[in-house]
Formats: sequence, structure tokens, C-alpha cells
Amino acid sequence: MKLSQAGELSLLEILRKRFGSRPRGVLVGIGDDAAVISAGKNILLTTDMMVEGVHFDLSWTTPFQLGFKLVSVNISDIYAMGGIPQYVLLNFSAHRNCSREFFDQFFDGIEEALKTYGVILIGGDISSAERIMLSLTAVGTGGNVLKRKGARVGDRIYVTGNLGDSACGLAMLRRIRRTIDFTKRGRRGLPVTWDVAAPLLRRHLMPLARNPKRILHAATAMIDISDGLIIDLSRLCTESGVGARIQLSHIPVSKEMKATAACLEISARDLALSGGEDYELLFTAPAKAKVKAFCIGEITRAGIAVVDDNGKRIKVSARGYQHFSLQG
Amino acid sequence: MKLSQAGELSLLEILRKRFGSRPRGVLVGIGDDAAVISAGKNILLTTDMMVEGVHFDLSWTTPFQLGFKLVSVNISDIYAMGGIPQYVLLNFSAHRNCSREFFDQFFDGIEEALKTYGVILIGGDISSAERIMLSLTAVGTGGNVLKRKGARVGDRIYVTGNLGDSACGLAMLRRIRRTIDFTKRGRRGLPVTWDVAAPLLRRHLMPLARNPKRILHAATAMIDISDGLIIDLSRLCTESGVGARIQLSHIPVSKEMKATAACLEISARDLALSGGEDYELLFTAPAKAKVKAFCIGEITRAGIAVVDDNGKRIKVSARGYQHFSLQG
Repeated sequence: MKLSQAGELSLLEILRKRFGSRPRGVLVGIGDDAAVISAGKNILLTTDMMVEGVHFDLSWTTPFQLGFKLVSVNISDIYAMGGIPQYVLLNFSAHRNCSREFFDQFFDGIEEALKTYGVILIGGDISSAERIMLSLTAVGTGGNVLKRKGARVGDRIYVTGNLGDSACGLAMLRRIRRTIDFTKRGRRGLPVTWDVAAPLLRRHLMPLARNPKRILHAATAMIDISDGLIIDLSRLCTESGVGARIQLSHIPVSKEMKATAACLEISARDLALSGGEDYELLFTAPAKAKVKAFCIGEITRAGIAVVDDNGKRIKVSARGYQHFSLQG
Repeated sequence: MKLSQAGELSLLEILRKRFGSRPRGVLVGIGDDAAVISAGKNILLTTDMMVEGVHFDLSWTTPFQLGFKLVSVNISDIYAMGGIPQYVLLNFSAHRNCSREFFDQFFDGIEEALKTYGVILIGGDISSAERIMLSLTAVGTGGNVLKRKGARVGDRIYVTGNLGDSACGLAMLRRIRRTIDFTKRGRRGLPVTWDVAAPLLRRHLMPLARNPKRILHAATAMIDISDGLIIDLSRLCTESGVGARIQLSHIPVSKEMKATAACLEISARDLALSGGEDYELLFTAPAKAKVKAFCIGEITRAGIAVVDDNGKRIKVSARGYQHFSLQG
């Protein structure tokens, strides 16, 4: 069955049956002109797009993974503010000949992510387009919001997990050019020789947003790493009016990433410094604070420096994913 | 200058300078991971997409008009709930070779609409894509929200203005296939013989969302007419579990629309019943209520009937704009 045969109204009905329950302060959910939430104090709102051929490639992305990732990348922005994600609104457009199967699996991925993060879909729009085009708006609540601005000279710089995994996974997907089904046990369609790198592929295809709950007490500024460590660190520093000094050897990287990068003959260092889409949190905290995360450096007066263990400065450009300048 | 030369960061800076002031409860605006608003009670959220080649055609749409319309169609949804529009978040994607001029004019249109409706842009995303792809999320506040559900048998049915103008304007644009600049006085690039129909073109290209302030006291259910009278009336009736009887001769139509439809040899009746994008409000109110709008019929137990002055039923199909079934 094709979407063109269903009509928008009946697609809406499908979504409504599935996501139409209205717990936790939703006065009006899917199916009216606007969604209404009964709000407490601070409402956090963020929105992001994913466009076929730009943000994803269906040669190696399943509809399920696409739906899951769309939610994750937006939830990550709410988390990066120290917020609690609550609701999402979704815009979905696809070619008229898009299969119903694709549509269903996409929303399976959405639903899985909604469960993962405990959020509710409260509205959106369905449309036709030549290629898949998605946008999602996430709404969160939060008492004390944590901005990019707030880092102070002398603060330590932390990340919540390994960097470069996602970019390394993407490099690998570009080689193998096939979909990997993580819902299957065992081989999942992955060549035997590549199986060690499955976590990298998963990180790229189905990233998990990091809940900052355990670090909020200490953090002074925060951002999620969507475009690469150096570029996102630059953003945080610019907002805070400070600089940073990063100890290269302190950046956490996985053994899988190092092995795979070697295999692919690409630089693990570049992946860790400039690879995007890890969705780890990058934050700063006072030197005395006890923080359960990886300390990778400290805030300075100005400039971004990456140094080796001898304190020697390593040349890095502020690369990363910028739509209208690099890879767009 | 092309967008690909500017980089997302500097485009963001442009937008931030322009829309970055943070009045009325905005704790964090453009430029961070999420926008934060300090909320009162009910927060209304709606989102809509506009895709090149589906929702608009650049042969006859200026970037300014596109930006203005994107805001209007979303504000219309907030108004249709009886809400007060407050904030918008915008996703903009275009080809890397999209001109800076296009970008600026598009945001001129956005800004003009923000002023018109008194709303604030608080966030969004910029990306590349093969064709122009837009989505907007509007946030509103409101005490008593007015849903599609709520119409009762015996209620009168009202519309706030002429129907069919926008669809007639679109039919005309498909013939003349050129842009019309309404910011210019005088000829505006319109052929002399067509000048009488300028309001129709304007209605299609730069629709104004209807503020329901003056009718809220009486309305029992409401929807905006985005997809056509019959289909949107059907939605309202379905939600309310009622039917409707529409008096054809009571539907307000403009003399410009009738004249232009005759000229184009299309049915003015069809345009009024099924033409979309007028963004007039369709609502119901008790028979005794005093309402400043056009009464076009009344709510019945079941079924949608359109009758002539002799009470004879006129055959109409529930047509209108449905992406995956008709025009997508």
C-alpha cells in the first residue's frame, strides 16, 4: 500500500490511534490545529531537520533508525540545556510513492525513541515531497537551564563519553553501503570481519541522547556534540567569552574506533576532534567539583588549543559539520 | 554571495542580530541548543511544512511572500484554537547555491509577518537540501482553547470572510506564471487586464491569518480553512460528532473571484466549496449568539449537505487539498 492511496486524513488517524493518548498535561494532542500543554514554569523548545541525501542516506539507514535518530538529535538539544524532554511535534514528508511499510517502520522508530526518552508526540504535519524530509520540534521543561554561556577561566572541560565513534561508523557505512538491522540478534547483516565495529555503526545510526542528570549540579556551561568537538567547543567558548586548552590524550576514544579507523586508514585523532553526531555532552565545571565524566582540558582566557602530553600544541582547524560551508 | 560561502554560523549570526532581542519571557532565544520561555498557563504549539514544488512554486512566489506565508499558515492554526500567538521556531533549508539575496528576502518576509502578528522568532535550524524546504513551529498561549470538537446540533455555522479567493488566485498564477511584487505601488508587474484580480493573488501569496478575538465569546468549535470549506467542515463535524447543512448562497464570495473565475472558465462554486488556503476561520456558535461573521448554515445530526435556496441538495464531494491523495 502506498501513502498516496491512504490520504492524509487516514494517516493522521493511524498516528492518532498510536500516539493520541493524552497524559501529563496535554490538553489537546494530535488531530487539532495546535497542541496545547498546560505548562509549569520554563518551557524549552528546539527544532531540527533531517533531509534525505544531506543528513541521511537510505542506502544504509533503515526507516526505523531514521525515526529513532530524528527524536534523539532533538532530545539531545533539550538535555544539553539541562531540560527534561516532554513532548515532540513532527513534520514528515515523503514521495507519494513512499511505501506504507516505510511509513510504519519510520514511526516504529519514532515510538521506540519516545519510549526511550519518556516523551509524547503531540502534533505535526504530513506532506508529500520528492525526497524524505523531516523536522521535529522538541519541548522540554526545566528549572535551571544550562546555557553555552557560563564557562569561567579555570573551569575544567568534560565530555560524557567516547568521541569519534559516530563519524567512524559513518565512514564504515560509506564503504559497506548496506543497512544493518540492530533489532536482529547475531549477524544483523554485517560482514563477519566488520562485526567488531557494530557499536560504531549503532552510534551513528541510532544515537542515544545523554541525560545530564548526574552532572547538572556541577556544570557551568553545556552543549551537545553534534558537529564535532572542536566546533562545538568553539561555540561554547565564544558564548562564554573564554578559550580552551584540550589535552589530546585525555579525549576518550573507544578501542573499536581506533581499530576501525586504522583499518579504514583514516585518522582516529581527526575523528575524535572533528567527527560529528556523537551526541555526547560537552560541559564545564569548577576545578573543585566532583564530576562523573571525562576531563579533557580546561578553560583559558582565549583561543582553542589542543596539546599533546608534552604540552606541545597540535594544529587543528575548527572543522566539523557546517551545512553551508563544508559538506552541504 | 551564496549561502554556501557564508557558513551556517555566520548565517546564524545574521539571524541572531536580527531576531535576537529577548522580550516577553524569552529566557534563551536564538543561538543556543533550545529556546526557553518562561510560561504562564496553556502553551499552544503547532508546526507546518512548506516544500518547493509541493506547497509553492518559485515561478510566481517571491522569497518575501514565501516567508510571510510560512508564518501566516502557522499563526492561523494558533488563532484557530483561540490562542494568542507568541513565538515561532523556523527550519530553513535550501540548495547550497541559493543566493544570499533569496535568503535575505525570505527573512524580510518572515520579519514582516512577525511584526504583523506580534510574534518572536526564538529558534530553528538552517540546513542544505536540493530544494527549498521549510518548516515552522508556532507557540501560543491561551486561556480557553477552542477545539474542533464542541459544535452542537442547532448551532449556526460561520465563516469570517470570502472563500475561494486564494484558489482562484492560484489558478490565475498558474496562467500568468510570474511573480507579483505587492510592495511596489501601481502596476506591480501585473498585466493591466488582470489588475482587478490583484486581491486574489495577494490572498494566495500573502494570506493573513484571522484573529478570532471578536468571535471567541460565542464560538463552540473552530477550525481554519486551509484545505477547503467542505473538507475542513467535515473535520470539525467529525470531531464534534455532528453533521452540517450549508446554504450555498450564503457563502461569502468576492466579486473579484466571481469575475476572475468566469474569465478563467472555472467554477466559482467549486472554488468556494473546495478551494484551500483562504485561512478564514470556520466556527460554530449557538443560534442565539450575536456574531460578527457570515452565517452559512447550521449544525445537524449527521452528514454534510449543501443546499440551494429552494432547499434542493447540491452534489459535492469532500474534496480539498490532501497531500497523499489528490495533488501531492
